Amino acid sequence: MLPIALDAMGGDHAPSEIVAGARLAADEYGIPILLVGRPDELGDTGGLPVLAASEVIAMDAEPGKSVRTLKDSSLVRAAQAVRDGQASAMVSAGNTGAAMASALLRMGRIKGVARPAIATPIPRLSGRPVVLLDAGANADCEPEWLVQFGLMGAVFARHRFGVTEPRVGLLSIGEEAGKGNSFVKHTYAAMAAIDWAAACGARFVGNVEGRDLMGEIADVAVTDGFTGNVALKAMEGTTKTVIKALLEAFDATPESREAAALLLPALLPLYAKFSPETYGGAMLLGVDGVCVISHGSSNANAIRNALRVAYDMVEADIVAHLRDAVSG
Amino acid sequence: MLPIALDAMGGDHAPSEIVAGARLAADEYGIPILLVGRPDELGDTGGLPVLAASEVIAMDAEPGKSVRTLKDSSLVRAAQAVRDGQASAMVSAGNTGAAMASALLRMGRIKGVARPAIATPIPRLSGRPVVLLDAGANADCEPEWLVQFGLMGAVFARHRFGVTEPRVGLLSIGEEAGKGNSFVKHTYAAMAAIDWAAACGARFVGNVEGRDLMGEIADVAVTDGFTGNVALKAMEGTTKTVIKALLEAFDATPESREAAALLLPALLPLYAKFSPETYGGAMLLGVDGVCVISHGSSNANAIRNALRVAYDMVEADIVAHLRDAVSG
Repeated sequence: MLPIALDAMGGDHAPSEIVAGARLAADEYGIPILLVGRPDELGDTGGLPVLAASEVIAMDAEPGKSVRTLKDSSLVRAAQAVRDGQASAMVSAGNTGAAMASALLRMGRIKGVARPAIATPIPRLSGRPVVLLDAGANADCEPEWLVQFGLMGAVFARHRFGVTEPRVGLLSIGEEAGKGNSFVKHTYAAMAAIDWAAACGARFVGNVEGRDLMGEIADVAVTDGFTGNVALKAMEGTTKTVIKALLEAFDATPESREAAALLLPALLPLYAKFSPETYGGAMLLGVDGVCVISHGSSNANAIRNALRVAYDMVEADIVAHLRDAVSG
Repeated sequence: MLPIALDAMGGDHAPSEIVAGARLAADEYGIPILLVGRPDELGDTGGLPVLAASEVIAMDAEPGKSVRTLKDSSLVRAAQAVRDGQASAMVSAGNTGAAMASALLRMGRIKGVARPAIATPIPRLSGRPVVLLDAGANADCEPEWLVQFGLMGAVFARHRFGVTEPRVGLLSIGEEAGKGNSFVKHTYAAMAAIDWAAACGARFVGNVEGRDLMGEIADVAVTDGFTGNVALKAMEGTTKTVIKALLEAFDATPESREAAALLLPALLPLYAKFSPETYGGAMLLGVDGVCVISHGSSNANAIRNALRVAYDMVEADIVAHLRDAVSG
């Protein structure tokens, strides 16, 4: 397999945690990796090859402009390496908008895709996560794009999480068909009008609600990128707040600290389940290549997991499956 | 004070828990209450007066149609009692849409209010909750309505939670002014164009994100009713999922059960903080009267708290303050 191009300069803890994650992925899984960034800032790469890129796109930089002007940035070079056949996939924990723009600009879209969408796995109790898309690539959407998001999300849920017949729901504010704002009503009509779901082995289950994003009634939840991003961040904020409150309660007294220590073995798997690290980030579906976008706060473990996702998706030939589904 | 009209037939646990909550509020706080419903189904009302209403609007009934056709329903009669000067406020845990429609139809709007909005308190660690509005009354909104939501939310935050200078944020997907979908960009411009905030003693703090809904940077978060409802339900779903996971972990082994029992004193206040019961439900702001909408799953405690909120808001003369702010 061609190496996975890893943006070594992107993320709150770049480059040290990024390089550390790359070394973990190489050591533990034997994944071939091409680090992209400033060679003299990467520290000990453990022998991993480096593609030199002299510029860095800041986490808060304006995405479109940065990608157009910083052509020798690690992000743009990583995307270019995929386009040029030097790499099989790209992974970045950097500026999300710039990662999308780089992928779109350098790899292009899969033929027939109206807009790429960010697919983010959301943990749930029963094991396999719910795939939420669009989680933020397109703030304003057309109803027809969401039909395609459903299709791409179903393909992703099958190949990423092994869901045989993914149940695809439309995020709304009531379960009945007529519920929602005017955009969602139009989208519902578009999703119900043609049998896109059966054609890709999925099932359209109608509207789902905010509470179902961690629930058991759908495997894929489709929405516009504004609503998806608000919901995702609201859920992340809630998880963090509840966990912070718990930790404070655990730390309240010597007795509570002792009791909490006894509970630790039961709590650690939970922490792993709900941590954003676990799923290795989101995937940009619809570009003509594998592009995994990891959380800005990614540590070495999160990067290792993101590289593993990219590797698995290349192995599964997800882009070919998406191409078939979109053209089918 | 005139009694508070309580829809005794609305809610998943009506009428028994509703009547029980009314008796608690009467006993503990001395709140005058007028039960509205079918007299022979209410059981022992503990001497509380009953306004007879022969019909019940089902939890899943179509709101507009129900309110127009079921004129002798407990919900419509409760709203009518406020309009007719028989009651000072209405409280319901029934069909949310029908509660709004009843209030709007019978009480009317405060002069100058474009659309009433549901204001829902969201718990946060630091004590006073964040007020989210609109949490679901208006699925499609105009930017100007949201300016008014900000104003009404600020008045509510001050009189309900004692926030002297409420910080009002616009829910979006990035902190910078230009971030969001086209609706939010227009709304931002409308909120920044006039100095509505200073006029009502509030402060516009610009965009906030989903994670800030339980955070510390705003006291009021303004959004359209679709986004607000999705975010609210996503947060409720997350809290429930995390708590369920915790309880499962606590119950895993005899050792974990013992440790969890030791932690209970530290955990109970947390549970109270994050439980939807605690804040006694949401308030419909902008109708010409006090209307408190409690969660459909309300038990007696939740109803007691909702009655307390209604009582406090009547005492604070919130409607007069809203009228001043909207006309000012």
